[in-house]
Amino acid sequence: MSKTSNGNFFEDFRVGQEFRHATPRTLTEADAALNVALYGSRFAVNSSDEFARAIGLPRAPLDDLLVFHVVIGKTVPDISLNAVANLGYAEFRWGVPVYPGDTLSAKSTVLGLRENSNKTSGVVWVRSTGVNQKGEMVLDYVRWVMVHKRDPQAPVQPVVVPKTAPSVKPEDLVVPAGLSIAGYDDGAAGSSHRWEDYAPGERIDHVSGMTVEDSDHMFSTRLYQNTARVHFDAYAGKQTRFGRRLAYGGHVISLMRALSFNGLANGFRVAAFNAGSHVGPTFGGDTIYAWSEVLESAPLPGRADVGALRIRSIATKDCPCGDWPGKGADGKYHPAVVLDLDYWVLMPRRLG
Amino acid sequence: MSKTSNGNFFEDFRVGQEFRHATPRTLTEADAALNVALYGSRFAVNSSDEFARAIGLPRAPLDDLLVFHVVIGKTVPDISLNAVANLGYAEFRWGVPVYPGDTLSAKSTVLGLRENSNKTSGVVWVRSTGVNQKGEMVLDYVRWVMVHKRDPQAPVQPVVVPKTAPSVKPEDLVVPAGLSIAGYDDGAAGSSHRWEDYAPGERIDHVSGMTVEDSDHMFSTRLYQNTARVHFDAYAGKQTRFGRRLAYGGHVISLMRALSFNGLANGFRVAAFNAGSHVGPTFGGDTIYAWSEVLESAPLPGRADVGALRIRSIATKDCPCGDWPGKGADGKYHPAVVLDLDYWVLMPRRLG
Amino acid sequence: MSKTSNGNFFEDFRVGQEFRHATPRTLTEADAALNVALYGSRFAVNSSDEFARAIGLPRAPLDDLLVFHVVIGKTVPDISLNAVANLGYAEFRWGVPVYPGDTLSAKSTVLGLRENSNKTSGVVWVRSTGVNQKGEMVLDYVRWVMVHKRDPQAPVQPVVVPKTAPSVKPEDLVVPAGLSIAGYDDGAAGSSHRWEDYAPGERIDHVSGMTVEDSDHMFSTRLYQNTARVHFDAYAGKQTRFGRRLAYGGHVISLMRALSFNGLANGFRVAAFNAGSHVGPTFGGDTIYAWSEVLESAPLPGRADVGALRIRSIATKDCPCGDWPGKGADGKYHPAVVLDLDYWVLMPRRLG
Repeated sequence: MSKTSNGNFFEDFRVGQEFRHATPRTLTEADAALNVALYGSRFAVNSSDEFARAIGLPRAPLDDLLVFHVVIGKTVPDISLNAVANLGYAEFRWGVPVYPGDTLSAKSTVLGLRENSNKTSGVVWVRSTGVNQKGEMVLDYVRWVMVHKRDPQAPVQPVVVPKTAPSVKPEDLVVPAGLSIAGYDDGAAGSSHRWEDYAPGERIDHVSGMTVEDSDHMFSTRLYQNTARVHFDAYAGKQTRFGRRLAYGGHVISLMRALSFNGLANGFRVAAFNAGSHVGPTFGGDTIYAWSEVLESAPLPGRADVGALRIRSIATKDCPCGDWPGKGADGKYHPAVVLDLDYWVLMPRRLG
Repeated sequence: MSKTSNGNFFEDFRVGQEFRHATPRTLTEADAALNVALYGSRFAVNSSDEFARAIGLPRAPLDDLLVFHVVIGKTVPDISLNAVANLGYAEFRWGVPVYPGDTLSAKSTVLGLRENSNKTSGVVWVRSTGVNQKGEMVLDYVRWVMVHKRDPQAPVQPVVVPKTAPSVKPEDLVVPAGLSIAGYDDGAAGSSHRWEDYAPGERIDHVSGMTVEDSDHMFSTRLYQNTARVHFDAYAGKQTRFGRRLAYGGHVISLMRALSFNGLANGFRVAAFNAGSHVGPTFGGDTIYAWSEVLESAPLPGRADVGALRIRSIATKDCPCGDWPGKGADGKYHPAVVLDLDYWVLMPRRLG
Repeated sequence: MSKTSNGNFFEDFRVGQEFRHATPRTLTEADAALNVALYGSRFAVNSSDEFARAIGLPRAPLDDLLVFHVVIGKTVPDISLNAVANLGYAEFRWGVPVYPGDTLSAKSTVLGLRENSNKTSGVVWVRSTGVNQKGEMVLDYVRWVMVHKRDPQAPVQPVVVPKTAPSVKPEDLVVPAGLSIAGYDDGAAGSSHRWEDYAPGERIDHVSGMTVEDSDHMFSTRLYQNTARVHFDAYAGKQTRFGRRLAYGGHVISLMRALSFNGLANGFRVAAFNAGSHVGPTFGGDTIYAWSEVLESAPLPGRADVGALRIRSIATKDCPCGDWPGKGADGKYHPAVVLDLDYWVLMPRRLG
């Protein structure tokens, strides 16, 4: 028996199969600092222990997207080492905040399988859950990914396509326990715009661009212990359809989020993804820009102090977003678009 | 009202105007390690908790220049997002040491304004102050910066040019409370040369060079939450007069300081900048070298154990410093010079 | 007397000479995170405090190779600043584990000297020892390195060539105090293969490749406060025989170790190097691959729960290792080989 894992191929998966992923990781203050160094994030709640304490949290929680990167990274060796492409996310919800010192681990269950007609690959749906050392859920989501077959002739399992919710309901969003908005300091946070100030249909150009170097996206992807080969191997990359390494899609999500500070500075917590698509590849040397549209504004049950904004953010490469490059009436994306993400953020409300 | 900030332009400033800058930041052990990783700094007091405790400090303080980077980074969105160039520093003085766990925030007051004759920009003088979570001053300085006008036709404020001191007086330098040089270990610090061994006029070639990659200077500048666009956006950089991204000037200052260890290893604290000029731009791929001249040697009032050395350090790019490239008799700099900094360091004295 | 150190040259060394190296360093959680970010290491014991506690350790120890990098980095200014090449390692043994908060320092003794026949350089043997703040040994090894002469005409010391052991004996390997394998979790560690499953002669292809960027190897080498100029100075690098910067050899060792997780995931501790050779240079842009062969399997005296595997790992550049590129019958290496390392790892045994 070979001691080297080459990951699972499409024909290896079974509906109901469970994976307990390897390498639990204790996150620390270093992960917080590196998240800033990699993306330039400026959300005050993740930057300042004092700010976090003033709103009832024990200290600055780690960036929500960092939690995503760590959890998804753990699933790669079992789920997506042989992925063709990451196709989508649904029912993607953050749970308890993660603090320095917490140890995260992850597990997944296969929900669905559908071979592609060319028989060289198939789509695998999994539900993955990240938990902390107390077993509390920190992140839970459905992801579907196209995975190569090892052998096109291999028999496959019957088709099962799971139903996923089109979006996360506001009442299912997790508000961190103990959160108390009375102490929220707009000046320190960098914006006086609160939940009431955003209306569906409003568009925000986040203005600045951030160039991705190969060294940067490899650094982050290694930090998350994500082993997807396409990101690390320039030699093998020459043989791919792109002819080069591909930046980890999550790196682009975090850059988009950091850029979105300019216009959404009080969106202090990413609470859920409703849907997301990595529309195009990002490579070293590309400069990422972003713009957002407010899709929906929702109060949260039992909370007069925090509301939810459903945001759609589009990230582009080498294309400033003053003209709102997005998806045309023909369903086709502007060629510069690399990410289209529909998500919920929590934002303080004006207090009575 | 747009929720996106494009920063202030020259005509937006008023003398006496105050800014409380956004995004307080809790610094941690990670910032200490990253400061080493980014510059290769080897000053023992910042590297070893044991060394720091032996001289009466609670633990290793964070690098003085790191404090500068964090404070100046916070001021960028309000003061210098639309800067043409950073022109100078004065009355630049460090206060209480900063330790892991401290949270820094910053505020600024506009001291002066002077429109340029071409009316497309003007000079803004600000006093900026960084404080820790107890409100104690960690850094205080005057900076002047040339800022674009949004509209050349816009009316501007009357000219006010503040007077700044030509240098910081030795008696105004802050010696960390509790400092006790008796436990200072020259062997661990890497040099047997103490304050008495340096004489005005002495020149020191720091020998080694350090190449700056684009990934490196972007990494540090993001870490300091500095949003100046010229450092991050290769796409927009193509349209600038340089045709590319520009390294953050503070990155060069920290490289110079790290290189200066070879010759100034016992200059354990940067206590003040008297004057400083970013003489030329630095780009990814440039290799930084440095040399220093001792300008002045000053005892400190009431301290027989620590003295101050006033140093002028010149940093160059792609030019080793054995021939002391600097400013000629004609007032022109050698073309390789990128930084000319006049500053005070504290150094242990020989004990009686 | 110049205050700038240019390092020692061959004629400066004396057998018996002792060096206490400068700049003690307190290692922190940040060093742990950066080790992951730089190499993508996934060994659970270094990644998770929970995992480490379950096997009787107080928390996750820092990566063994990180300890090596820090200790060897400290020796560079005194021993190998003027090195031509690093020639070999022997009697290379880790001691007590290193935890965040520990402060490491290093000292060396010259064991041997032999001038080369061309009189431009010579070989220096040193024994170097790293200790923590309690004076406990964390790493102890013999290294020999070829060092330039300042002056080919300079007289040199008599030839002394020390005898070094051909390998470290299993009974001399240090098992961390308190280690208790009963709580070792194969699932979290990522492999069900234990000590009994590996037999001498077995070969393992570690499959994946990792590309080294100049920014990456400079970042790690600065983090270890290693001042060897060949790694940092692209300008001077143009004048060398390689025409460019050279990656720190230890960076390649750590990449090899991280890649070896795929096949050796339960080799939770590097306990000793028996011999090692940096066969060829690595540059920015090279992609590192690795394969291993089990040389020997040894029980450890008094331990039924942990065994030692003697591994030989070969790292290559731009050459996947499915065909086991190594050393031919003629004693010549495959041109892609950059590292040949013979070392001991500790691995859990099956419990009765």
